[in-house]
Amino acid sequence: MSRGDGRGAGKAGGTPLRELLRVGGGGAGRVGLGAYDSSALPAGPSDKAAGQAAAAALAEPLAGLQERLYAAATGGDRRRLLLVLQGMDTSGKGGTVKHVAGPLNPAGCRVTSFKAPTAEEREHPFLWRVERALPRPGEIGIFDRSHYEDVLIARVRALVPPEVVERRYEEINAFERALVEDGVTVVKVFLHIGFEEQRERLLRRLDRPDKHWKFDPGDIEERRLWPAYQEAYERVLERCSTAEAPWYVVPADRKWYRNWAVGRLLLEHLEELDPRYPAAAFDVEACRARLIAG
Amino acid sequence: MSRGDGRGAGKAGGTPLRELLRVGGGGAGRVGLGAYDSSALPAGPSDKAAGQAAAAALAEPLAGLQERLYAAATGGDRRRLLLVLQGMDTSGKGGTVKHVAGPLNPAGCRVTSFKAPTAEEREHPFLWRVERALPRPGEIGIFDRSHYEDVLIARVRALVPPEVVERRYEEINAFERALVEDGVTVVKVFLHIGFEEQRERLLRRLDRPDKHWKFDPGDIEERRLWPAYQEAYERVLERCSTAEAPWYVVPADRKWYRNWAVGRLLLEHLEELDPRYPAAAFDVEACRARLIAG
Repeated sequence: MSRGDGRGAGKAGGTPLRELLRVGGGGAGRVGLGAYDSSALPAGPSDKAAGQAAAAALAEPLAGLQERLYAAATGGDRRRLLLVLQGMDTSGKGGTVKHVAGPLNPAGCRVTSFKAPTAEEREHPFLWRVERALPRPGEIGIFDRSHYEDVLIARVRALVPPEVVERRYEEINAFERALVEDGVTVVKVFLHIGFEEQRERLLRRLDRPDKHWKFDPGDIEERRLWPAYQEAYERVLERCSTAEAPWYVVPADRKWYRNWAVGRLLLEHLEELDPRYPAAAFDVEACRARLIAG
Repeated sequence: MSRGDGRGAGKAGGTPLRELLRVGGGGAGRVGLGAYDSSALPAGPSDKAAGQAAAAALAEPLAGLQERLYAAATGGDRRRLLLVLQGMDTSGKGGTVKHVAGPLNPAGCRVTSFKAPTAEEREHPFLWRVERALPRPGEIGIFDRSHYEDVLIARVRALVPPEVVERRYEEINAFERALVEDGVTVVKVFLHIGFEEQRERLLRRLDRPDKHWKFDPGDIEERRLWPAYQEAYERVLERCSTAEAPWYVVPADRKWYRNWAVGRLLLEHLEELDPRYPAAAFDVEACRARLIAG
């Protein structure tokens, strides 16, 4: 697999960002997050001003491709895209949603934030609530947290026995494979931040009364389990970065880099889909004549 | 009730737009859409450049109020807002969604486009699918079409007997009253366009191959029923513009005016809600100390 230090060495040039950030190449070996620098700039802009400009420049092509994807669905194209965002508290999942979805037409974009499961959700298999939130043909779905919580917090907090967690890795892989076969492009992004960066972000939330609502003292308890969470993420990246639905690790200590990188990953996948406006399934001239007459 | 010619006479000055565009004042009499000029500029900007600037200036206050609404919900505030958009084909419902929702954080904004009911939806009462799409506390919900289709196309196409349509007006009023009592601010907007304007918009879609996907020859059949639809809208405005959940008629022949007016209506309602960031329900200094130590 590509290693953090290797990726950090040079700029991308013509290499797609997805090649640089993808975990494994179908047969991922052991993953150690220690090899991934959360403040790295493996490709693209190298300072904040350039990063913000590069991110802003993605808005127009993203909006254009989204419209074509949406239009294609009206012609029977079933393809759609699901962006899964995971990361530790304060890693910027919400901020990324805001930034990446900002230029998209909200009518074709389904954002779902997964919280602790409700009573109704707990009565169903863990993938039930995820299935209900999937994008429909032509849509872009964005998950802020996802079914991966069921092998992350569930593992760290031992909410289910270890053999159930083991089984879930396989169930997730089978589930995502079925999605891909059904026309869903699955883009899974781990927003990787450092332990010190998280401390600073939590302290900043405490500094500002208008950010207190984002703070939960429970976050401090979760932070104490940092090593266990990092290990749970490593197992996820090892077990569930498949050829059909790979994981991407985005260095997320710098918000401007994170925003650019996730937008860029989304753009690369949409460009590959290359959706087309459907041809008219009606007689354009006859319709024009009827409109002018009536 | 306020009449089109009266509203068009002068600029608003200090009068809220909602006062100018609201149908009826709790006891609406007979409504005739002929009295409403679809190209009027009843208040606010009076040319395209000014309209676009005024609409753009709404983005920041709208985003700020949305964040406060969302934040307030984390403190137990159950309030939320539902924007219902109705109008004839090409009246700009989709464009309005794009414009109004653009500056909002998509994580707190639920957009639902209601199409012809699916087989599953037809097996349930007509409000069933609407209930499932309602905004949760802190959210802004936007409906592109809505339960009003069940007294519009259902009336015009006689999909149900007249007595069922009659009953539905009352059911809708009771349903919306219950929403309001539960903390939902219901803002219902009729995008009013003229018959000739619709012709031009349909013709423009035919002119551009990248707009053909938006065209449905069935739209020409619907257009032949224009008078029946106008009458169905008049009955809706008469029967369902209640004190709790009034209708607003927005002149929509000019896109820039429509965008500004709907944004402005949304802003006025959010300003009235005046949501507040919740106070911290935890000891800020103790949390800070724990974060610095650990």
